[in-house]
Amino acid sequence: MDIATVIGFISGIALVSITILMGGNVGIFINYPSMILVIGGTIAATLINFPLSDVLAVFKTIKNSFIQKTSATAGVIEQLVNFATVARREGILALENQDSDVSDEFMRKSIQLAIDGTAPELIKDILTTEIAFMEDRHAMGQSIVNAMAAFAPAFGMIGTLIGLVQMLATLDDPSMIGAGMAVALLTTLYGALLSNLVFLPVVGKLKVRTALELLQKEIVIEGLLSIQSGDNPRVVEQKLKAFISPVERELINAGK
Amino acid sequence: MDIATVIGFISGIALVSITILMGGNVGIFINYPSMILVIGGTIAATLINFPLSDVLAVFKTIKNSFIQKTSATAGVIEQLVNFATVARREGILALENQDSDVSDEFMRKSIQLAIDGTAPELIKDILTTEIAFMEDRHAMGQSIVNAMAAFAPAFGMIGTLIGLVQMLATLDDPSMIGAGMAVALLTTLYGALLSNLVFLPVVGKLKVRTALELLQKEIVIEGLLSIQSGDNPRVVEQKLKAFISPVERELINAGK
Amino acid sequence: MDIATVIGFISGIALVSITILMGGNVGIFINYPSMILVIGGTIAATLINFPLSDVLAVFKTIKNSFIQKTSATAGVIEQLVNFATVARREGILALENQDSDVSDEFMRKSIQLAIDGTAPELIKDILTTEIAFMEDRHAMGQSIVNAMAAFAPAFGMIGTLIGLVQMLATLDDPSMIGAGMAVALLTTLYGALLSNLVFLPVVGKLKVRTALELLQKEIVIEGLLSIQSGDNPRVVEQKLKAFISPVERELINAGK
Amino acid sequence: MDIATVIGFISGIALVSITILMGGNVGIFINYPSMILVIGGTIAATLINFPLSDVLAVFKTIKNSFIQKTSATAGVIEQLVNFATVARREGILALENQDSDVSDEFMRKSIQLAIDGTAPELIKDILTTEIAFMEDRHAMGQSIVNAMAAFAPAFGMIGTLIGLVQMLATLDDPSMIGAGMAVALLTTLYGALLSNLVFLPVVGKLKVRTALELLQKEIVIEGLLSIQSGDNPRVVEQKLKAFISPVERELINAGK
Amino acid sequence: MDIATVIGFISGIALVSITILMGGNVGIFINYPSMILVIGGTIAATLINFPLSDVLAVFKTIKNSFIQKTSATAGVIEQLVNFATVARREGILALENQDSDVSDEFMRKSIQLAIDGTAPELIKDILTTEIAFMEDRHAMGQSIVNAMAAFAPAFGMIGTLIGLVQMLATLDDPSMIGAGMAVALLTTLYGALLSNLVFLPVVGKLKVRTALELLQKEIVIEGLLSIQSGDNPRVVEQKLKAFISPVERELINAGK
Repeated sequence: MDIATVIGFISGIALVSITILMGGNVGIFINYPSMILVIGGTIAATLINFPLSDVLAVFKTIKNSFIQKTSATAGVIEQLVNFATVARREGILALENQDSDVSDEFMRKSIQLAIDGTAPELIKDILTTEIAFMEDRHAMGQSIVNAMAAFAPAFGMIGTLIGLVQMLATLDDPSMIGAGMAVALLTTLYGALLSNLVFLPVVGKLKVRTALELLQKEIVIEGLLSIQSGDNPRVVEQKLKAFISPVERELINAGK
Repeated sequence: MDIATVIGFISGIALVSITILMGGNVGIFINYPSMILVIGGTIAATLINFPLSDVLAVFKTIKNSFIQKTSATAGVIEQLVNFATVARREGILALENQDSDVSDEFMRKSIQLAIDGTAPELIKDILTTEIAFMEDRHAMGQSIVNAMAAFAPAFGMIGTLIGLVQMLATLDDPSMIGAGMAVALLTTLYGALLSNLVFLPVVGKLKVRTALELLQKEIVIEGLLSIQSGDNPRVVEQKLKAFISPVERELINAGK
Repeated sequence: MDIATVIGFISGIALVSITILMGGNVGIFINYPSMILVIGGTIAATLINFPLSDVLAVFKTIKNSFIQKTSATAGVIEQLVNFATVARREGILALENQDSDVSDEFMRKSIQLAIDGTAPELIKDILTTEIAFMEDRHAMGQSIVNAMAAFAPAFGMIGTLIGLVQMLATLDDPSMIGAGMAVALLTTLYGALLSNLVFLPVVGKLKVRTALELLQKEIVIEGLLSIQSGDNPRVVEQKLKAFISPVERELINAGK
Repeated sequence: MDIATVIGFISGIALVSITILMGGNVGIFINYPSMILVIGGTIAATLINFPLSDVLAVFKTIKNSFIQKTSATAGVIEQLVNFATVARREGILALENQDSDVSDEFMRKSIQLAIDGTAPELIKDILTTEIAFMEDRHAMGQSIVNAMAAFAPAFGMIGTLIGLVQMLATLDDPSMIGAGMAVALLTTLYGALLSNLVFLPVVGKLKVRTALELLQKEIVIEGLLSIQSGDNPRVVEQKLKAFISPVERELINAGK
Repeated sequence: MDIATVIGFISGIALVSITILMGGNVGIFINYPSMILVIGGTIAATLINFPLSDVLAVFKTIKNSFIQKTSATAGVIEQLVNFATVARREGILALENQDSDVSDEFMRKSIQLAIDGTAPELIKDILTTEIAFMEDRHAMGQSIVNAMAAFAPAFGMIGTLIGLVQMLATLDDPSMIGAGMAVALLTTLYGALLSNLVFLPVVGKLKVRTALELLQKEIVIEGLLSIQSGDNPRVVEQKLKAFISPVERELINAGK
């Protein structure tokens, strides 16, 4: 699990909660109809905007992006170099036995293609197509969360307008003005929190993660093709290290 | 009909209605002159901005995009593979009899061109031009709805300003301030609802749908040309499946 | 004259006027100093921003774009096909007599170049350059109106701020607060109306019109060159119809 | 001096001044600490953002762009055609004597290069590099003024927030609320005026002027190379007129 | 240290402080819970958005960009010309002794590569890759600070909404309204100051600095390759001066 994200979410919610607690009166900040309007309105507008299947998929994507651990890029390279060593020594079919250790599905599929003796061009074609569709899927996911980041404050404002109209139209008892406005402002607060503490940072997270996954998958393709063509493990390492920054390269070297 | 869109619209309107109903006083939210100002002003600005024929066309496009069912891409591919089988077995002219089953006009036209023995280059040219004009037409439609999404809140604000000026200028009876402001805020509320629950999600919908239609029409062209050149049905299937994601491909295979 | 634009302007102004009239007190919405500040400030900022000659030209462009009738693209094609028929039958010099019927200056100039026996490359060069400068001129015009659409609400806000400061600084008589704020808000209302009912839709109109003029001028060049090279009228028609949508093509065919 | 800019500035300031004067109480609009906060804050943020030398240079650029007269493009072309005539008749070295009449430094430098017998490729290289750096310098200047147009309203709002907090915290005497808010709003007014009447129009002005200077410098390069290659003055004129619009071309012809 | 940045920060903070001091009541502007909410919320959202290592790196980048002195580009060129002179006279290995004087790590590494006799293509490849990763790292840093510039005012508004709800819900004592609103507005003030006096100018600074570093590193690569190929020091100087503006070139010449 990504530690920074967890720290970010917990500290963000804690900060807002403590600020509210310090005011003494927690109950006034909890208003279920207001919550339902903002969250429900955001989801409703999103459902009109995007196909149902894509909206459902985005929740899975978000969940994965927080729970699934991204493997370190350095680790991916080391694993490929190990495979290169095995393939050099015992032939490419020996990778069959290594296969069970591989947790990443994309790498397992790539190895299987190499073991099956698929032609390099075809391997590259199949895997590149798979990456392209992954990119499309992730771009769709990002645009859905982006739309939610825009709809949440909008429905917050709609809720506040409804509350203000109700309060203003029944202005008989001036002592109720404050309470009415307090409730009316809650939806705007909910919308702002949803957008700035959830949707916007999650879009950013998804972007960073997509870039990382893309890089690692490209490294896997490059590495597999290099192994298949019988490259020396040191050559495989050289080729793959060109994908990572000089700083990370030294980390790998130091780890040896 | 697209189920997510229907759910979205109904739940969105229900949420807002329930929020209003819970306030007890529904009548204060219905103000016909305010509605006419916001909707009318939006339409007026749109009519100045775009040619009349395009504005009228956009309503038809929106209606179609909600009522017309999009055929599943997998279904389009299966149909083309069937045609390939028929053409392989009985010759391309046998497609004449299949023609009546085809509900999609673009596919029917494509088949007719193939049956007529039109040269492949010309078929590609004719159909690609048709797709290009479809894209232009849809882009125009999207920019019209986009403009409406911007004009609606603007006229909402204009209505509120008019209401505020009227209320403030006749501030004789302080007890009327609340009622006056409530009415003044209604146009802003209408504008925000129109923009966020109708126009913006509809633009998104149109974009997603255009992308899907474009993909399917490209598949039809590719498939027709493949059939016309006498390709084996299995080759036709391979070629067309490259257009869809690995997940969808497995759905087709599973459906067999 | 463009009927949609006229309907848009009249209905937009009518809607706002009726909304104001329904409030009973029309006089409070008319404040000449406020109007002068918003309109004058917008023009002042525009004059600093753009050369005087271009600002003056934009008013002419706007006037033309509302008064001048755009010829239907189908009509332009039909006219060119007629010229092709005449040129085929009686030689290209016979177009001299047709020339007086042509209302569009660009087409008349193109025909004259063809009659004068100018080389095709030179004709294309001269006319394409003219189109390029027309595009530049129109782009400048659009950016001027765009700037006005941004300056108008800004000066509306500046006027409201001035009014608020004046009202707040002389808060001796609380009964005057309302009237003061009403006047202060007027400039914001004027700025919003100018921007959303005039400048923004006019920019859109100019864009649509520029695209149409550009298309028609390209059709004229293509047609003239085709006529000059002695093409058969049917070939000329085929070539030019590729510029318009299948729907419009059928309109021409139906009109025959 | 550019007459439209002067008219714009004077009329803009006059309009705002008259609006304020009509309120009778001019003194309330002049608040030196507020002015210092908005202007000073804008300059401070700009100094953090950009290198000192570039910030200082931008003031010179702005001053020049208002005081220096831009030569008419038609005049530049006529001058180059004159040089072509002299060079044709008396040899390129005769331009030495013309040199003193040339007020534009770029043209003088170009002529000197031609007189010195520099190879055409090298002349083009040297002058194009100089233009590229001029473009960079102007782009930097535009982005600095653009940043100021964004910082000015931001510091206006910061000033208003400070004023509001001070006023609200000392709400003992309700009769002082108005005066306090009036002062608080002044910084927002200053920020809006600075942005909309100074910085934004000046950025626009700089852009238009850069485009014009660029065009004229390109005409000078083209003209010089044409003169150096011994072209006939009429050919030089033809080549250079391709850079200007048909309308301007007729102005030159009419002026003959 | 960059003098303009220091002046900017000090004068900006001084201006705001003096404005607050003039109001007499400094204490009301210092509210630790509000500060913690705005700064903490901004950091929390940033941590969700970006990987922890990149967020930590950005603070180092910002610190460096204010403390580390950028070497003048002219100085970089002079140093390379000196190296060229030494290499011409005493052979490229003589640069070994110069190496200790070089404070810039990139240049030292480049020289070392040249001394080691690395092939020119490989040197270019290694150094260009290093520059590309530096660009990536800086772009990530800029997008992190950019995100903070957007989150700070958002959490300022969230804090104000929380404060308003608390104040409005406990509107028993009208005399406390002012004090409550004053505190509520503080978070908006903090957010605006953080964004406009810190984050936005720092992003600008990082952009300008990245551009400068990039240019200098490209000059180093070009210079090293020129030295390695045995170019005459004057040729090296000519080549490198093409990277800087004519004005800077004259400064170098004047300094001779």
